[in-house]
Parts: sequence; structure tokens; C-alpha cells
Amino acid sequence: MNNLDIYYTLGMLGTVAFAVTAVLAVIPKQIDLFGAIVMGIVTAVGGGTIRDMILGVPVFWASDLNYIWVAIASSIVAFYGNQLMSRKNIYALMLYLDGIGIAMFVIQGADKALDLDFALPVGPVLLGLITAIGGGITRDVLAGNTTLLLKKELYALPLTFGVILYLIMIQVFPEKVKLLGTLCATLTFFIRAAAIHWKLHVPKWMLTQKRGIFSN
Amino acid sequence: MNNLDIYYTLGMLGTVAFAVTAVLAVIPKQIDLFGAIVMGIVTAVGGGTIRDMILGVPVFWASDLNYIWVAIASSIVAFYGNQLMSRKNIYALMLYLDGIGIAMFVIQGADKALDLDFALPVGPVLLGLITAIGGGITRDVLAGNTTLLLKKELYALPLTFGVILYLIMIQVFPEKVKLLGTLCATLTFFIRAAAIHWKLHVPKWMLTQKRGIFSN
Amino acid sequence: MNNLDIYYTLGMLGTVAFAVTAVLAVIPKQIDLFGAIVMGIVTAVGGGTIRDMILGVPVFWASDLNYIWVAIASSIVAFYGNQLMSRKNIYALMLYLDGIGIAMFVIQGADKALDLDFALPVGPVLLGLITAIGGGITRDVLAGNTTLLLKKELYALPLTFGVILYLIMIQVFPEKVKLLGTLCATLTFFIRAAAIHWKLHVPKWMLTQKRGIFSN
Repeated sequence: MNNLDIYYTLGMLGTVAFAVTAVLAVIPKQIDLFGAIVMGIVTAVGGGTIRDMILGVPVFWASDLNYIWVAIASSIVAFYGNQLMSRKNIYALMLYLDGIGIAMFVIQGADKALDLDFALPVGPVLLGLITAIGGGITRDVLAGNTTLLLKKELYALPLTFGVILYLIMIQVFPEKVKLLGTLCATLTFFIRAAAIHWKLHVPKWMLTQKRGIFSN
Repeated sequence: MNNLDIYYTLGMLGTVAFAVTAVLAVIPKQIDLFGAIVMGIVTAVGGGTIRDMILGVPVFWASDLNYIWVAIASSIVAFYGNQLMSRKNIYALMLYLDGIGIAMFVIQGADKALDLDFALPVGPVLLGLITAIGGGITRDVLAGNTTLLLKKELYALPLTFGVILYLIMIQVFPEKVKLLGTLCATLTFFIRAAAIHWKLHVPKWMLTQKRGIFSN
Repeated sequence: MNNLDIYYTLGMLGTVAFAVTAVLAVIPKQIDLFGAIVMGIVTAVGGGTIRDMILGVPVFWASDLNYIWVAIASSIVAFYGNQLMSRKNIYALMLYLDGIGIAMFVIQGADKALDLDFALPVGPVLLGLITAIGGGITRDVLAGNTTLLLKKELYALPLTFGVILYLIMIQVFPEKVKLLGTLCATLTFFIRAAAIHWKLHVPKWMLTQKRGIFSN
């Protein structure tokens, strides 16, 4: 496989993981097959869709429907195979694949904004994050679940760190964009994987402080 | 009336039904007139608006404000006339009109995507569904209600069936697009109407299976 | 300061108020710093972003990142200074600044739609309102809070009144657009300020009527 194939394959694995974890997350809500597929598609391609609408460019899946097909197939498999899928080791695998997905998509999203010179230097950070977590947030809103913005899990923070590091590094080494993208996505994934493995939480100084006695 | 007039009239009746059922659905939440009108507009034109933003074309109501006027007027009437409107027979009428609305809009939305050669063959299915149920889902999210994705009612499934049937049939009989659109919308409506009348639910094999003992 | 500077300064103050009130509103939910910043940005620029996506024009903050920087900085300050910020007098100040923000943004949003001849005459009203309250509604949805559409507070109604008055007045005095914009925004703010000060609610005839005995 050449580089492009690897990226494409990883992107598809991330899409599988997005759809599967989405379906498993809503199954306790007594969803039907249709709803499950919608949740799978929304989670898998929702972030990139919002990014493209903000960028004012055609949505990415319109020119490559594999993203949709893979999301639909994964959702169906997850729906009917949920007993298997929610077994601890399979679910853990999905969490790590989801980690690969968000780590890749945050860099990909930033790259797309960079290519269009969109709102530099903040635009690529925002759109990278929207690409990676926009689908998951939309899924939580549609399912009536607490969005990941209100959870203490170390989920969005490694992404923010990784994408900012990437954007700084490519300023310093502009001829190494591809290598740096791979490195930063890998690093981001490893931080996220560590967070999954050791159940790491957001550091205390980033959590809400107790409110003082003078507050109303 | 010629064909176009009939379609336009049905579209407006669907808009009335979308707005009225939206307002009746949020009235138990103690909404005020402003909120009711917003809910009515969002439900009536929200799906088509999301579709047009994904397609990257001007939103449909910008060139025909009748959709907005009808939604506003229907919302006001539903708000002040809710005692009448929520009488069983009037509400049932609205449910059937809503059925006409979703059946027509799913075909219309698919047609718009087809005309633009958008992401064939999946794009028209997705955008048809978004046109038909996107407004209702947005309403549920804004009202804090469980979205229709999490209900067992036979609502989105007949739409999916109807729009896929339509897209297959026009491949086979490409010169009969108009007739087939009417037929498939009618069939879709009748399935939905049967679901309303006999309170049909999603078939069992499309519901969540019980989770096995090995699941975590 | 010339006029433009004043408008720009007021816009930035409104942005500060949007971000700060957003963060204070979600702090009881145990949000972390990342989530707080996202909420601050979404609330501050979300409404204008939705407006621009509906208009089909580039999002406004892409060409002036100060809106994003100010939202981020305000969110961080509000997050760590929440004991101070939620003291009654500071919080009241933020409510009034928020009032300045929505009063200005409703007129600004309407102006942008007017400049593009978008869906006259209803388009400017709708897009003005979306600009002013779209961010706040998105924040409530993401935070799992009841949206302002379901509250009896006099919040959106003064905006609707102000923007419709503005659109009528500039028909009558088309050469006084700037003056009328300032006047209507000021009037809108004063009504909102009165609502904050005297805790005014939506008038009774705009509230849901009791449902009759015949209702189902």
C-alpha cells in the first residue's frame, strides 16, 4: 500500500468506528433499524458535513459515497450484532478505532481549511475540531444524551493539542507537511489511547472551580 | 387545476400540517406566541433548508415566501385555536395532512438532488428524507422532546421505502418521472395513513434485539 | 471615535457578553475549560454563522477573527473568574451587555439580508432574529438546557418588535437608514433592559391558553 491507500483505509476504519460506536450508544434507547442507520451516518459524516458547509464547498461525501456506504453497512452490522459488539473487548477495539478516527479527522479537517486559506490561523483549528467531534455532538443531541462537551473524559483536549502542534510545526518545517500530519495524528491518537486505557480525566485546573460564597 | 397547481396546493397543505402539528406538540410546554411561530416555521421549512444548504443552492423559501407566510399564519391559528385543533378529529386530520406533506416532500427533495446530479444514487434518498423529516427533528431538538428517530412509530420507514422505490422505478421507466413521483408519493402516504389508522409499529426484526448475557 | 468605531466596539462588547453569559450558564453543569470555550464561541458567533450559511455567503468571522479571539478570551476569563462573574452585580452587567448585543445584532443581521435583497420583506426579520438568538439557542441545545423559546422571559419579543419597526421605518425614510438602525437598536435594548430590571414576562394574551374540556 502506498501512503494514500493507508490514509484512505484509516479514514474508512475511522468511519466504521464512528458508526458502530454511535449505534451502540443509542441501542439502550430502544431505537429501530432506521434510526440506528441515521445515527450511524450522522456520526460518521456529520462533522465533515458541517465543516464543508462553513467552508462553503461541496460536502465531501458527495464525491465519494464510500463514506456513506461504509457508515450504513457498519450501522446495520452494529445494530444486529450488538450483543457481540458490546462485548467488552470488541467495544474497547471500537473505542480505539474511534480514537484513530478523531485523530486523523482533526488533522484532515485542518488541512482542508489550510488549503483554502480559511480564517488563518484559528480557522484550521476550529474546523479540524468540528470535523472530528461535530458528528458525535450531533449524535448526542439527536439521541437526547449529554454531549461530550459536558463530560470530563479526555476526548477533545488531545485533539486540540494535536492540531495546534501540527499547525505550529508546519510553520517551522513547511516542506514536511505530510510527515508532520502523520506524526501529530499518531501522537494525538496515543494520548487518546492512554486516556482510554487509564481512564484519564481532564486535568483539575481545567475543571470548574468551586463557586465562592459571594456568588449568587 | 392543472398538475402544477395540485402539487403546489398539496405542498401548502403539507406546510400547514407541519406548522400546526408542531405548535400543538409544543403547547403543553407552555410556549409563548413567539416561540410557537418559530417552532411552526422551523418545522415547516427546516428540512428543505438543511437540504438546500447541503446542496449548496439558495434556500427554497427565499424565492417563494408563501411557505413562510403560510407557516406563520398556521402557527398563529394553531396557537390560539389549540382547544379546537387538539380535538381528536381535527388532530387526526392534521396527522393525515402531515402524512401528505412528508410523502410529497420526500419525493420533491429527492427530485431536487436528482436534478443536480447530487451524490447519485444515495444522495437523493438522503436529501429526500432530510427534506421530509429534518424540520420535525429540529423541532423536537428545540423543544427538548425525544426525536422521532427514537420512536417506534412507523414514520420514517414508509418514506424510505417510497423514495427508494421511486428512484428504482424512474431508472426502469425514465419517461414517466412525473407519474411515478405521484404514484410513489401516494403509496407512501397510504402506508403512513395505515400506520396512523391502525397504530402500526416498526416490524419487530427492525427493533433492538435483547442484549446477550455477555454484553457489558 | 467615529460611528463605525462605536458600532464595532459595541459589537465586541456584545460578543464578550454572549461568551461570558454562555460560560456562566453552563458552569453548574461541571463543564471543563475546553467545553466552556466551545460554548462561548458557539454562543458568540453561532447566530451569525447560521445566518451566513442560509444567505450562502462566507461566514463573517472568517474575515475578522477578532470575534473568535474575543470569544475565546472572554470564555477563559469567565471560566476562571466565575466566582467574581456570578456575583449579582457583575452578572447583571453581563445581562445588560447581552441586551446590547442582541439589540445590535438583530439590526445588523437584518441589514445584511437587506443588502443582499434576500427574501424581502420577511427574510431580514428572520435572519435578524437568527443572528441575535441563534447562538444562544444552539448553546442551550448543546448544554441540554431548555431553550429560550420555551421561557416566558421577554427576550425575543422586543427583538422582533425592534427589527420590524426598523424595516418599516426605513421604507418611510430610506435616506436615514443609519440613524434609524441606531434608534431601533437603542429602543430594542431599552425594552429588553426594562424586562431585565422589572422581570417582565411575555404578555398574557401571547401565552398558551388553557386547553378546553373537549381537547384530547
